[in-house]
Amino acid sequence: MSDYEEGKTRWWGWGNVDQRFDVENRSRLIPFMQESLGMELGRERFSDPVLDEINIPEPRIASEILDTIAGIVGPENVSTTKFQRVSHSMGKSYRDSLRYRERKIERAIDAVVWPRGEDEVVKVLRIAEDNNLAVIPFGGGSSVTGGVEPVSAGKTATLSLDMARMDRVLSVDPTSQTAVIQAGALGPEVEDQLNVQGFTLGHFPESFDHSALGGWIATRASGRQSTGYGDIEDMVLALKMVTPRGMVETRKVPNTAAGPSVLQLCIGSEGILGVITEATMSIRPVPDVIDYRGLIFRNFAAGVSAIREMMQQGMAPTCIRLSDRAETALANAFRHTTGPKWKRQGEDFALKLLARRGYSFEDGAFMILGLEGDRDEVEYLRSGILKLCRNLGGFHLGTSPGRQWYESRHDTAYFREQLINWGVMVDTLETATTWGNLLHLYGEVRSALRSALEEQAGRAMVTCHVSHAYREGASLYYTFFAPMLPEGKEEVQWEEAKHAASEAIMKYGGTISHHHGVGYEHASWMPNEVGSISLAAIKAVKETMDPDDIMNPGKLLPITREG
Amino acid sequence: MSDYEEGKTRWWGWGNVDQRFDVENRSRLIPFMQESLGMELGRERFSDPVLDEINIPEPRIASEILDTIAGIVGPENVSTTKFQRVSHSMGKSYRDSLRYRERKIERAIDAVVWPRGEDEVVKVLRIAEDNNLAVIPFGGGSSVTGGVEPVSAGKTATLSLDMARMDRVLSVDPTSQTAVIQAGALGPEVEDQLNVQGFTLGHFPESFDHSALGGWIATRASGRQSTGYGDIEDMVLALKMVTPRGMVETRKVPNTAAGPSVLQLCIGSEGILGVITEATMSIRPVPDVIDYRGLIFRNFAAGVSAIREMMQQGMAPTCIRLSDRAETALANAFRHTTGPKWKRQGEDFALKLLARRGYSFEDGAFMILGLEGDRDEVEYLRSGILKLCRNLGGFHLGTSPGRQWYESRHDTAYFREQLINWGVMVDTLETATTWGNLLHLYGEVRSALRSALEEQAGRAMVTCHVSHAYREGASLYYTFFAPMLPEGKEEVQWEEAKHAASEAIMKYGGTISHHHGVGYEHASWMPNEVGSISLAAIKAVKETMDPDDIMNPGKLLPITREG
Repeated sequence: MSDYEEGKTRWWGWGNVDQRFDVENRSRLIPFMQESLGMELGRERFSDPVLDEINIPEPRIASEILDTIAGIVGPENVSTTKFQRVSHSMGKSYRDSLRYRERKIERAIDAVVWPRGEDEVVKVLRIAEDNNLAVIPFGGGSSVTGGVEPVSAGKTATLSLDMARMDRVLSVDPTSQTAVIQAGALGPEVEDQLNVQGFTLGHFPESFDHSALGGWIATRASGRQSTGYGDIEDMVLALKMVTPRGMVETRKVPNTAAGPSVLQLCIGSEGILGVITEATMSIRPVPDVIDYRGLIFRNFAAGVSAIREMMQQGMAPTCIRLSDRAETALANAFRHTTGPKWKRQGEDFALKLLARRGYSFEDGAFMILGLEGDRDEVEYLRSGILKLCRNLGGFHLGTSPGRQWYESRHDTAYFREQLINWGVMVDTLETATTWGNLLHLYGEVRSALRSALEEQAGRAMVTCHVSHAYREGASLYYTFFAPMLPEGKEEVQWEEAKHAASEAIMKYGGTISHHHGVGYEHASWMPNEVGSISLAAIKAVKETMDPDDIMNPGKLLPITREG
Repeated sequence: MSDYEEGKTRWWGWGNVDQRFDVENRSRLIPFMQESLGMELGRERFSDPVLDEINIPEPRIASEILDTIAGIVGPENVSTTKFQRVSHSMGKSYRDSLRYRERKIERAIDAVVWPRGEDEVVKVLRIAEDNNLAVIPFGGGSSVTGGVEPVSAGKTATLSLDMARMDRVLSVDPTSQTAVIQAGALGPEVEDQLNVQGFTLGHFPESFDHSALGGWIATRASGRQSTGYGDIEDMVLALKMVTPRGMVETRKVPNTAAGPSVLQLCIGSEGILGVITEATMSIRPVPDVIDYRGLIFRNFAAGVSAIREMMQQGMAPTCIRLSDRAETALANAFRHTTGPKWKRQGEDFALKLLARRGYSFEDGAFMILGLEGDRDEVEYLRSGILKLCRNLGGFHLGTSPGRQWYESRHDTAYFREQLINWGVMVDTLETATTWGNLLHLYGEVRSALRSALEEQAGRAMVTCHVSHAYREGASLYYTFFAPMLPEGKEEVQWEEAKHAASEAIMKYGGTISHHHGVGYEHASWMPNEVGSISLAAIKAVKETMDPDDIMNPGKLLPITREG
């Protein structure tokens, strides 16, 4: 059972209640952050909310309708409890985290429904249409774009359609290396069921523990190993999507030339067209070897060239991450400082050696290189890639930094939770562009973010990394920090920074999202992203599949209807 | 200038007039075909048509409209000559070849227009809309699905919009390895312009000489080297498409999560939404090494396993082709039998050696393995792939059969021309499915084709090969031959065979087209392929972009409007 559980899940933020960020074993981190942001850290600006402190209106849905739905999905699979309604009303964006901590639910889900199969989804949508209810498909609730929040006007009520009961790997075809998987399966549920048969999906986003297949597909997600295993849209052979006007079911073939891609129209549709119920996914054998290493380059540009060369020479790694100078310094402060003395001494010695060769973590670009596969393949790639990196001035740090990153790769989300509680605005955003434009866009977005943040709060920290690479270009993933403005100004502070970054992204040739999707946070940039005629086309598709606009209304398409 | 030229281009069939199939140096071929089909070959059933023998009605377009168009594109870029109208009225399908040879133009293009740039396309579409003219984008005219033929009802006239004047590589970004290319550039024009800068697109369909970038994109084409370089839809980063209601212009980024893929909606749109004018394509350095080899397997199933293993072990070759038993025997008969005696003797000796090990071209499965890239990459793949093939019983024949295939790879299209003239029905069709279903689908479609053909004409020959492979499955490409039925029954004969194959494809889990597209020939299978709600969605997109249905009407969507 993958449901949100009261008392176990941090519904107001990220992760599990009993898991906290380990700051004690990282003695450099707080001083580094304090120095960077010019503020003291440690005092709790926000306390964790408890349900009793939160007021939401009574559910707006008639009990007869709830009874009808209960007749379909079973009474245990409909809920109007405060916990379920509150925890399904927002996602995991910075804006959401703020509002939860402020005990402020602006728009509440009226009821949560857990369908147990496709037929039940069909029936629930029919009832929703008959009663002018909005329906928001809910996977793991990890949206950072407002994707799961009810923002609709003109609906009598909103159902959160939680797909948690549809969490099975229905079949595995080991010959084709494909699996039919239900949309509600969370990351660990997908992997556990595949692993016992010797396979992996290879999709490991930061949200892995708390996001589901349907959500990945609906938002065109990318996992951290996407450079090797592909983005989610590359992994979907076929899908089933229930729309209010009928079933979309694409054929289970590896490729087709039968017209415009309906498959790629459903992927990224963010629940506005229908409910993705299952997908036929490309899977792979669990790799024999998992080999993660660290490298350091003298600067970001050199590291970027190395990644470009790997991709263009046909040596795509499974996972590649390159931090800019600011993020490299942060990553260095992030490292554990406790543990056996010999280890610390070894690290100090290594740093001195590096310094003698002109590398440092204060002034370099740190790279994580991850290779997964069979022994021959990993060896071939490792030797080719390390040679290529060496030629571009990259210094190989061995497996230890790679292992450290791999083991602590889920910690940063918890760190963010802690920072927000301490009164630090922290958020991330991403874009992508071609190699030829990458450093230019990198600089422009960073400047725009810094300027906006510093103008508001005096101080700011903007870090960036490349983490998804293609032959033709790569993603840029920014994390930005600033002292939070006084009470009441936090959301505007964030909006202004986000706006400045988004404008720069559009102006200098990026895309408004590389893998977080659109929701309502990015909707106003869609006309710029795809043009008005394309938006009108998407809207026409929506009107065909969902003429009464019951499916996740107010998302993806900009609210002004000039399209 | 890439235009059809009178007297030079075989407008009634494939290729250039001065190029004929070399049957003289293949002494085994005719006896083999005669034996297989139970008919004598050599007598011309059809003579090549000349223009004077063809009657088409006067163009239905008012001279004032032509004058207006001439004012936009220049008088030299509008034509109503018989040659231009006739040569633009049909494509290169078997049905087209038959009708041209029968001097029968059922539906004629009224005028041909060659726009010189995007602005001219915009203006011509406006005039077309104002005057209720249909517009059919025309690249190389190689459609085998009826894609360039006017089939519209209710239009006053039809323009063929020949993109030949828009044939430039507009820019190359060597860092990103991308190029902006105009849609009218034919295969050789694309490659020539890229090659001088050290790059290749890597898209080499059989139609290469007589097909254009815009057509490839509009039909989701695949080149013969698609297994390594990707299908055309994998190579397009961004495109511009002029629709009657505005410009679609997607962003030049390697990936995006900004909603449903408008890019993948335009790719495969076959001119029904608008005119693709240019695209930003992924390009690659011209390979250092081009290495083609032959292998033989004891049977088709063993060869299929080998390809599957290559793909799933991350050793994708650039080009892979595996012929079934019937096609292997045909390929053997196809080989040159003249040339130096030592060569013939060498071949005979090799065949005897093979026979002693249990392999033969009468009863085996012939494979072409093509590797292109830098030396290290090719060596790594070659050794891995050959080892893998050996383990599955594959016998390595060396580079000679590979070179022979590579050198004569354009001959088969001319052979088809010759066979039709001799009264042989010959056509091809393709599908794709997952590995787990491949042999099953292979058998079912072959049986359906054989039964249909034999029922009509008593004898038939059905051959098949795999030529585009993916991790999860592959294409199946059938060529079928039968003695042509008496005059007047040729088209029905072909329709019945095609129908039987298409029904089997849909019933047994294939797709109606792997890379030829839909046109009008496959339109009636689209409801089965994508479902009625998806078709309605495509139709809604069309109504948004082209509300007056001027763009290639009657294609892709089934004519019954129940969608």
